[in-house]
Amino acid sequence: MAGSQGSALAIAVCNAGGLGSLPTALLSTENLRREIAAIRAQTRQPCNLNFFSHSPPTPDAQREAAWRAALAPYYAEYAIDPANIPAGPGRNPFSAETAAVVEEFRPAIVSFHFGLPSAELLARVRATGAKIFSSATTLDEARWLEAHGADAIIVQGLEAGGHRGHFLSYDLSAQLTTFALLPQVVRGVRVPVIASGGIVDRQTAKAAFALGATAVQSGTAYLLCPEATTTAVHRAALKSPGAAHTALTNLFSGRPARGILNRLMRDLGPLSDTPPAFPLATAALAPLRARAEAQGRGDFSPLWAGQNVSQCRAIPAADVTHDLAGVGG
Amino acid sequence: MAGSQGSALAIAVCNAGGLGSLPTALLSTENLRREIAAIRAQTRQPCNLNFFSHSPPTPDAQREAAWRAALAPYYAEYAIDPANIPAGPGRNPFSAETAAVVEEFRPAIVSFHFGLPSAELLARVRATGAKIFSSATTLDEARWLEAHGADAIIVQGLEAGGHRGHFLSYDLSAQLTTFALLPQVVRGVRVPVIASGGIVDRQTAKAAFALGATAVQSGTAYLLCPEATTTAVHRAALKSPGAAHTALTNLFSGRPARGILNRLMRDLGPLSDTPPAFPLATAALAPLRARAEAQGRGDFSPLWAGQNVSQCRAIPAADVTHDLAGVGG
Repeated sequence: MAGSQGSALAIAVCNAGGLGSLPTALLSTENLRREIAAIRAQTRQPCNLNFFSHSPPTPDAQREAAWRAALAPYYAEYAIDPANIPAGPGRNPFSAETAAVVEEFRPAIVSFHFGLPSAELLARVRATGAKIFSSATTLDEARWLEAHGADAIIVQGLEAGGHRGHFLSYDLSAQLTTFALLPQVVRGVRVPVIASGGIVDRQTAKAAFALGATAVQSGTAYLLCPEATTTAVHRAALKSPGAAHTALTNLFSGRPARGILNRLMRDLGPLSDTPPAFPLATAALAPLRARAEAQGRGDFSPLWAGQNVSQCRAIPAADVTHDLAGVGG
Repeated sequence: MAGSQGSALAIAVCNAGGLGSLPTALLSTENLRREIAAIRAQTRQPCNLNFFSHSPPTPDAQREAAWRAALAPYYAEYAIDPANIPAGPGRNPFSAETAAVVEEFRPAIVSFHFGLPSAELLARVRATGAKIFSSATTLDEARWLEAHGADAIIVQGLEAGGHRGHFLSYDLSAQLTTFALLPQVVRGVRVPVIASGGIVDRQTAKAAFALGATAVQSGTAYLLCPEATTTAVHRAALKSPGAAHTALTNLFSGRPARGILNRLMRDLGPLSDTPPAFPLATAALAPLRARAEAQGRGDFSPLWAGQNVSQCRAIPAADVTHDLAGVGG
């Protein structure tokens, strides 16, 4: 969960018997090394490094201008001069540089979102002995990933929070829910299938196992954990009644992701043709987000959350992990 | 499943140990009596009558004209004179006339879609001793239905085929999937909860029970049964690879319903501001649907189906029912 966690949450999950995961898309290579070193120092359990594998887009001055024009009323409201907003930070895709970090640290598992990196980069990961996971949002994507060498498929049901991982079809109506997609993928591929989307506690985990999952992946359930780096406005939103209402939105990055409905999503419509290509939409929002968050408001923040926030609790990550695993209680 | 079944399917399900249901929205009062009489003659098991409980809209000549203008290219293609298309048939909501039929036949269960009828009509149903069920698509709707006297709540997950039953909020992004909504409703109300949406076989039924359902409701799984009245083009579509791609569309009736993507949905976009209010959109499409179906094409037909058509098989309704119940096999 890039932006909501670093090594601390991954370590806590690993030490509780789960497979902790470190999101890397917002980390510089230097910070990536530092975070991995922290994990190595604090747990001996296997860990997962998660990378985005998108192709960085060519910046388009016209689209960028249209996006900033759409945000002009907010810049005026906050007395921000849009001419002074720097480009970036975007999200970093898996690259030769990050492949070298994988080769150095040899994590047990490397997972990707938005398909897989180039065959050359993937071969470098495979040569380290790491198992390779990636997300599928349709049966076609699951079969594609299996054919391209994924060792396990993460089925991302429509209810999942954060970025949709689709990479073969951009038609959101083709995206199925956990209930519909999971059994179809379990029947359609031979590799193990990991369920994600709506899984927040032992009850939902049990249902995913009934649908044929080999394992479950949970994000939203950990957002309020003390080990997460979830911001104060994000935590407040997750605890509010408004958290029941999430939507897919491409406003915050340029790609559809599920988050709690906020002012920007209400004003511009959660899905819009205006934002530039992923991940370029983020930069223009950064100063608005910073100013609003300083006032305790999440009006311009990506408040990522799945549809099932009802069991999201401010408890240690170990307790969430034990609950998901059906241990104790 | 109005349009895809009559008494024969209800009877087969009842006699196989399930709760068979008769959809009434497309039946005249005369045909309703005839269908109920057929059920009474062929099964002694309890049965459910399902009614729509919408408020019929005031026809709006301007919206009707805009709708027919949008369809003009198709009328030209089929040499249809739009001036000769009669208004109706719409769907009939529960009324004093149908309440009288309930009083006469006293079914074990009466279920509603789109909320509940007026307090007066509901009291007449209750006085017959019938249990009252209705569909909820959000936690708010489930609580509303319980507060207004529903004896059980049917949770309609986003993956369900046919018309969405929402009645408090028309914002589709507020509609949750079975995985997210079912456990929230189970925790949020005291009455029994029936799961629908994505449930097509014993595996998905088992998952719904794991999420706290008291019972499961299945529609799509029965569409290819010999006892269903599903049309030839609908059956062909259900068996085609294209069945994997469904979308919510308001083109066929004026209200969002899930069906297999077809030409009209592709051309106009599945959700559009053009169709008149439910159920008035249907009339203008009727001759196009008839002509296309005569050519074996479902270009203008509502091909209702849930997201999980993968287990939809041309087997007797008793076999589908036994599979859902985990009996035999």
